[in-house]
Amino acid sequence: MPRRAAASPRGAVGNIARVATTASTTKLVYDFAEGSREMRDLLGGKGANVAEMTRLLGADLVPAGFTITTEACVAYMRADRTPPPGLDDQVGAALAALEARAGKRLGDPDDPLLVSVRSGARESMPGMMDTVLNLGLNDASVEGLGRMTGNPRFAWDSYRRFVQMFANVVRGLPGERLEDEIAAVKADRGVTLDTELDTEALVELTVRFRALFAEHTGEPFPQEPREQLTQSINAVFDSWMGDRAVHYRRINRIPDDWGTAVNVQQMVFGNKGETSGSGVAFTRDEITGAPEPSGDFLVNAQGEDVVSGVRNTQDIADLARIMPDVHAHLLEILRTLEGHYRDMQDVEFTIEDGRLFMLQTRAAKRPAQAAVRFAVDAVGEGLLTPGQALATIDAEKLDALLHPTFDPTADYTVLTKGVNASPGAAKGAVVFTAADAVAADEDGRDVVLVRPFTEAEDVAGFHAARGILTSEGGKASHAALVARGMGRPCVCGASDLEIDLRDREVRIDGEVVLREGDLVVIDGTSGAVTTEDVQLVEPQMGEDFEQVLRWADDLRTLGIRTNADTPEDAAKARAFGAEGIGLCRTEHMFMAADRVPKMRAMILADTLEERVASLAELQPLQQADFEGIFEAMAGLTITIRLLDPPLHEFLPDREQVHAQLDEARTRGDDTAVVALERTLDRVHALAETNPMLGTRGCRLGLLYPEIYEMQVRAICRAATAVRERSGAPPHLEIMIPLVAYEGELEVMEQLVERVGQEEGLARGRDFTVGTMIELPRACLQADRIAMHADFFSFGTNDLTQTAIGFSRDDIEGKILAKYIDRKVLDRSPFETLDVPGVGQLVRMGAWLGRKTRGDLKIGVCGEHGGDPDSIAFFHTSGFDYVSCSPYRVPVARVAAAQAAVSSS
Amino acid sequence: MPRRAAASPRGAVGNIARVATTASTTKLVYDFAEGSREMRDLLGGKGANVAEMTRLLGADLVPAGFTITTEACVAYMRADRTPPPGLDDQVGAALAALEARAGKRLGDPDDPLLVSVRSGARESMPGMMDTVLNLGLNDASVEGLGRMTGNPRFAWDSYRRFVQMFANVVRGLPGERLEDEIAAVKADRGVTLDTELDTEALVELTVRFRALFAEHTGEPFPQEPREQLTQSINAVFDSWMGDRAVHYRRINRIPDDWGTAVNVQQMVFGNKGETSGSGVAFTRDEITGAPEPSGDFLVNAQGEDVVSGVRNTQDIADLARIMPDVHAHLLEILRTLEGHYRDMQDVEFTIEDGRLFMLQTRAAKRPAQAAVRFAVDAVGEGLLTPGQALATIDAEKLDALLHPTFDPTADYTVLTKGVNASPGAAKGAVVFTAADAVAADEDGRDVVLVRPFTEAEDVAGFHAARGILTSEGGKASHAALVARGMGRPCVCGASDLEIDLRDREVRIDGEVVLREGDLVVIDGTSGAVTTEDVQLVEPQMGEDFEQVLRWADDLRTLGIRTNADTPEDAAKARAFGAEGIGLCRTEHMFMAADRVPKMRAMILADTLEERVASLAELQPLQQADFEGIFEAMAGLTITIRLLDPPLHEFLPDREQVHAQLDEARTRGDDTAVVALERTLDRVHALAETNPMLGTRGCRLGLLYPEIYEMQVRAICRAATAVRERSGAPPHLEIMIPLVAYEGELEVMEQLVERVGQEEGLARGRDFTVGTMIELPRACLQADRIAMHADFFSFGTNDLTQTAIGFSRDDIEGKILAKYIDRKVLDRSPFETLDVPGVGQLVRMGAWLGRKTRGDLKIGVCGEHGGDPDSIAFFHTSGFDYVSCSPYRVPVARVAAAQAAVSSS
Repeated sequence: MPRRAAASPRGAVGNIARVATTASTTKLVYDFAEGSREMRDLLGGKGANVAEMTRLLGADLVPAGFTITTEACVAYMRADRTPPPGLDDQVGAALAALEARAGKRLGDPDDPLLVSVRSGARESMPGMMDTVLNLGLNDASVEGLGRMTGNPRFAWDSYRRFVQMFANVVRGLPGERLEDEIAAVKADRGVTLDTELDTEALVELTVRFRALFAEHTGEPFPQEPREQLTQSINAVFDSWMGDRAVHYRRINRIPDDWGTAVNVQQMVFGNKGETSGSGVAFTRDEITGAPEPSGDFLVNAQGEDVVSGVRNTQDIADLARIMPDVHAHLLEILRTLEGHYRDMQDVEFTIEDGRLFMLQTRAAKRPAQAAVRFAVDAVGEGLLTPGQALATIDAEKLDALLHPTFDPTADYTVLTKGVNASPGAAKGAVVFTAADAVAADEDGRDVVLVRPFTEAEDVAGFHAARGILTSEGGKASHAALVARGMGRPCVCGASDLEIDLRDREVRIDGEVVLREGDLVVIDGTSGAVTTEDVQLVEPQMGEDFEQVLRWADDLRTLGIRTNADTPEDAAKARAFGAEGIGLCRTEHMFMAADRVPKMRAMILADTLEERVASLAELQPLQQADFEGIFEAMAGLTITIRLLDPPLHEFLPDREQVHAQLDEARTRGDDTAVVALERTLDRVHALAETNPMLGTRGCRLGLLYPEIYEMQVRAICRAATAVRERSGAPPHLEIMIPLVAYEGELEVMEQLVERVGQEEGLARGRDFTVGTMIELPRACLQADRIAMHADFFSFGTNDLTQTAIGFSRDDIEGKILAKYIDRKVLDRSPFETLDVPGVGQLVRMGAWLGRKTRGDLKIGVCGEHGGDPDSIAFFHTSGFDYVSCSPYRVPVARVAAAQAAVSSS
Repeated sequence: MPRRAAASPRGAVGNIARVATTASTTKLVYDFAEGSREMRDLLGGKGANVAEMTRLLGADLVPAGFTITTEACVAYMRADRTPPPGLDDQVGAALAALEARAGKRLGDPDDPLLVSVRSGARESMPGMMDTVLNLGLNDASVEGLGRMTGNPRFAWDSYRRFVQMFANVVRGLPGERLEDEIAAVKADRGVTLDTELDTEALVELTVRFRALFAEHTGEPFPQEPREQLTQSINAVFDSWMGDRAVHYRRINRIPDDWGTAVNVQQMVFGNKGETSGSGVAFTRDEITGAPEPSGDFLVNAQGEDVVSGVRNTQDIADLARIMPDVHAHLLEILRTLEGHYRDMQDVEFTIEDGRLFMLQTRAAKRPAQAAVRFAVDAVGEGLLTPGQALATIDAEKLDALLHPTFDPTADYTVLTKGVNASPGAAKGAVVFTAADAVAADEDGRDVVLVRPFTEAEDVAGFHAARGILTSEGGKASHAALVARGMGRPCVCGASDLEIDLRDREVRIDGEVVLREGDLVVIDGTSGAVTTEDVQLVEPQMGEDFEQVLRWADDLRTLGIRTNADTPEDAAKARAFGAEGIGLCRTEHMFMAADRVPKMRAMILADTLEERVASLAELQPLQQADFEGIFEAMAGLTITIRLLDPPLHEFLPDREQVHAQLDEARTRGDDTAVVALERTLDRVHALAETNPMLGTRGCRLGLLYPEIYEMQVRAICRAATAVRERSGAPPHLEIMIPLVAYEGELEVMEQLVERVGQEEGLARGRDFTVGTMIELPRACLQADRIAMHADFFSFGTNDLTQTAIGFSRDDIEGKILAKYIDRKVLDRSPFETLDVPGVGQLVRMGAWLGRKTRGDLKIGVCGEHGGDPDSIAFFHTSGFDYVSCSPYRVPVARVAAAQAAVSSS
């Protein structure tokens, strides 16, 4: 199942809805026979599914029981932990019906009915809330159970488990104190395993537990089963507000006021002997998705034993040998369930005295390859339509199918772990500079670029290296962003590593662990770093995956473009299905070794004439770059963003110039001193306190129109050249970055139109002009700005930075973890769009823009363009396309199709 | 008149309204007798006032004429410079009526009617649009005029002026070429003054002008007066779209689609001889506001001669001697006009052959002292109510009354000029460091702190110095902001100055102009810097000003608080009428010399324990600071903001530590080396790319709760101590800065409440908790945030930075001037709130906040809290108070009253 988007109504419900809690006449308890899977909100996931199974398979196959609604829980919370009126009566009636059906009574000293009491929220919150098993046992009924089953040890073991669970879960007795008692009794008996305790020992243990209970609570252990039940139900309600559960909900954005249901179900026993057992099963292979059921089971065991891993389980296939009828029956049920739910299922079952009971069913979690396989097979089998099949895939996970990985069977020592910043594995010799990486690439050597952190001038090294390893920064660091953009594996912030660029070595705790040229292997999917020659496994876009993508393309309405600055990236993205370039940054072109000196000369120019002269030298180079990209994208649309970053990014570091200056002075090289002093002056003059909010984007275009003019000219000439050569020119969209004021775009569109005209190209016919919407003010004034724009491309990275006041570089490493920890945030707003804040601005901007101009083309080119949850939001916001890094294109295609299916 | 707020409907009209232009049946021409001052939008300011004067004084006193409406101009523009249908006929009819009344005909060869054609927009745009005088002359009528006036020279001088003006203004003949002809004729005649040209020479000049006209336009000079008139009217329409006018409107935020009216008025002649003359007069002294008329006039002259300053004018009092009847009549008219308009008037008049004509009246521009004097006198005289009187004051200008200034009569040489960053004049010896300033202050010496730029650690020097002078930065630089906050005069960005901190000298072009200890005098009102001992004049809050402020307090509904961090500032602001502190920053307290080491120790702490220990040392100091402020503000409300700036602001500069480290290594001082290396590590670790968007505000509070805890404890203990001592504790508002997420405030309010409880204080009773709203996300989520806030204080400085993506430090010097030049902006969004962008967020935040909590207290503590236009916006947005720097408090009181008056 895909994660639900941040745009889902969940947030809204949590924030606003208030459930009516006048419960006296409200139905608060549903028999399993009354519910269905549509009632998930009211009965919780478990309750709804058990009810559905009861309907589907019949009451004989599902132990009977009833569900107390989530509304009852909400009423209980609102009333300061007081059960709502009527609940007790309704539970009593449901229990009476259950007893009648089972032919047993709760607490009957001869043949007691036992029940489990389990939580069950609308969405699964595994392990977050409390469960009580074997309820209904007391000093009398334990004897009856022993007699009825002919197994007093089983009866006493069940009783001591119940007392232990009840004391701990319902009354808060610390688990360690109970465990201490077990240890003491085992020590007395000279045994080491729980299973070695005999009946007498279990009796003693139960007595000790009850003494502890009395001491802790000041009350005797309740013998009255109805009292046990009431306390247990309230305890489940309470566990909804427990720390663990609250924390989990914050992380998973589940509103507090959903509440949990409580399921009371007749116990069945898989531990009654050799014709009993418990197991879990999947309707298909849970790793590969192949259409054969898989699973594990244990003879003479309860469900917890299967899950806990205490005993070695058997493969479900073995059941065919041991209990062939049960096995056949189970397979039939699995087919029935999958057909009914139209999705791969994960079930729990128990066999009691050769009789099969189904306890739970739910959609199976599955890795990407299994998800893809299931989707394709399910359509082939006629089980699902392509749209339904797509909806069963977690698009985010598909990323794993596109990158090489460590061989899962490989055995290796991890040197250290960092942040898994860009997926995939890479192997190569250590280099410490971008230049060395470029040189190695030219020699055909595989290298990994290792740096404390990276900067714009390192970008050439990203192209050349197989992977990137840094000791500083997180998922939003420069290294991470650029690496993800290029699909290069990257491990960031491996803070154990002391990377010494001068001595060209890497130390851990002062010990040298890597020198230049040493082999290093990184796994950007897990963050692992090793020096061992681990086998890598290449990814395969198998036929199933291709099929899924074809269906996605049929179903989606959002266009999918890519962010690409080079012909290579463009071609790669096109191969992945990109329908154009949504963001072609022009600044990386200036970072190449042969351009930096010219770019610097331009920036250091004292006069307009000097600057224009330097630009004239850059122009043919930029034109050639554009020609390459235009050819790679022949016939498609390309959005080209004019120069965006502040000019100081192209200048050398201040300390570096200082050092060169000292050196030139020592040398007595006066010419060099003068030149370096001038550079230093310019470095000082261009330095900014907050470059993010400084002289960049169209502000450069207004201050130095000659730069943008050169770029537009290069674009026009490249387009003309490509048209003449190939006859298939791209559709050009010229994009002005960082517009806050209508007037900025007005001045810039005039410049673009004028230069276009001078080059024989016309707006509308040969190119369009638009802007990035990446500042809050632009969203608020989008109606005015749209008067000058043919398209908007939302730059949600910068919009997130400005709207929240978060500098990615500064926040990700220092603040985000703390914020998630303190429940202020659930995940990084740079990964998934912050819908309540930034999303409001995005919607406002899109709406105002289209108000002015109904045919305004609207897209997004921030990293959110590759995030499935955010894509769903953009789809429902009426966007025309999303643009993402090449490797995210397949993910985006599927996510866009899912958004279209779920909103149609 | 106060400037209109950015919130005025003007912008909206300009953006949206479209005037219907089906003009065939529309009345496009109004006789002066038909108009009135209420028709300003339609007739323009001049037309409406002339009509009003005609009504008020009678047609005998105002030369007759008619006005072509602004709607005609708009229709003309919309129709691509084609006069609207019907205009020509309506002008013809109006002209016929004018001729009938005057008993003269336009172009009559015997006794021609002459008219002026003048623009007149809704708001005065002095000198921006065109005027044609003496229209109606041609080769025939010039002779008739000569005969009728018995003054052929006058007639030919009028004709050549008309030809010259018409050729230049209406047909675009360059003025220089016409001036060249005058020079040539004068050279021929051997004379130097225009007035020395005789009739023959003027005839020749007219011929030459006409030849030039024919050459330039390819047409003969139009002899037909109706043709002259039509062309002139169209020229005035055209001048509305001329570059100068468009530019002026952008600056003054006048919409393009207002259009201009055209006034056609019978000429009267002040240059007919010794019983004629022209003048300007004010109903009261235009400098002091004293209730005696003032003004200038010239005998035998036209209006332009008075204004141009070519001849020395006579004081209006002299008119009593020269033409006593006219003088008495004029004074009577002035009284009538002022009484009618209920405001000080500025009039133009002409005397033709002993007969007085009034040509124009308008509200007089006046300096602050005259505005205040007039307001008080006008109320005393029963002319105005206090509310009306206040409305006549430009609140912004009142600032001038609160600061010392250069003696206006002083004569001195300006060394250089910089940006007038904080008003007032200051005199003292040059010091180059904050420490030196502090030392001088302790010795009782007056100093001016001179630095290239200032930083947080220089703040102590601001207190100690009389004024601040920097060579870098603009009105939004650190120096400017802090200086304005403290009311210290400041000249910033005096970029001629090379300030050499090492050699302790200041150079201009390499020449030393100032050494440490030299006298320097700065005028922060004008930006002037001098080394001469100019006399300064101390300000006086005179009784009139006090009276105005008392009225303002009666009328305003907005509370006025101040931003103050010290007892001195608090006391000063209280003396200026502040009703509390809206922003008490706690970080400046850590900048003092005795605190910085402790603060650094806290930041450098490796463990929580170490940090808590350092904080424990700071706590009593901070408590003492608070006690001082609380005592100064006894009984009033104080909003205290917990620590806001990033911690690295308290650490030494990186290069400084490097230098110390080198030095320690050379010295072989291992202990120092270790300590400095640790400092350097911490400086590196805390360095941020964009500190504005980094780890500051409540993010610090979440990362280091112990810091906020210390601050809250110090606040509580100070409050308790002051209450015990004085019985008059302040009302405390504890403010959490930089909240973006509801959860941030939730965590922080819990901390504040807990510490308050530990100190025996309770929220609600002893203090309230609120937040700054200074991020776009906070505005968008204000309903959620308000669930945890007792008050909101809008931090519009940071909100402006984030919403527009403008870093003040980086933008003001580099971008703003260019933006204003390119008409992208009209003024800095840091001076006056950007209503369409930032203002939308402010209104949204206020509205959402009150939606959650109707009694939410709302204020503003950004610099906009002291800007009259912005104050009007906050008033209409339902704010409870504004907070501004102490010296802006009186301005804010008046502006708040004006806002209340104009919206009531």
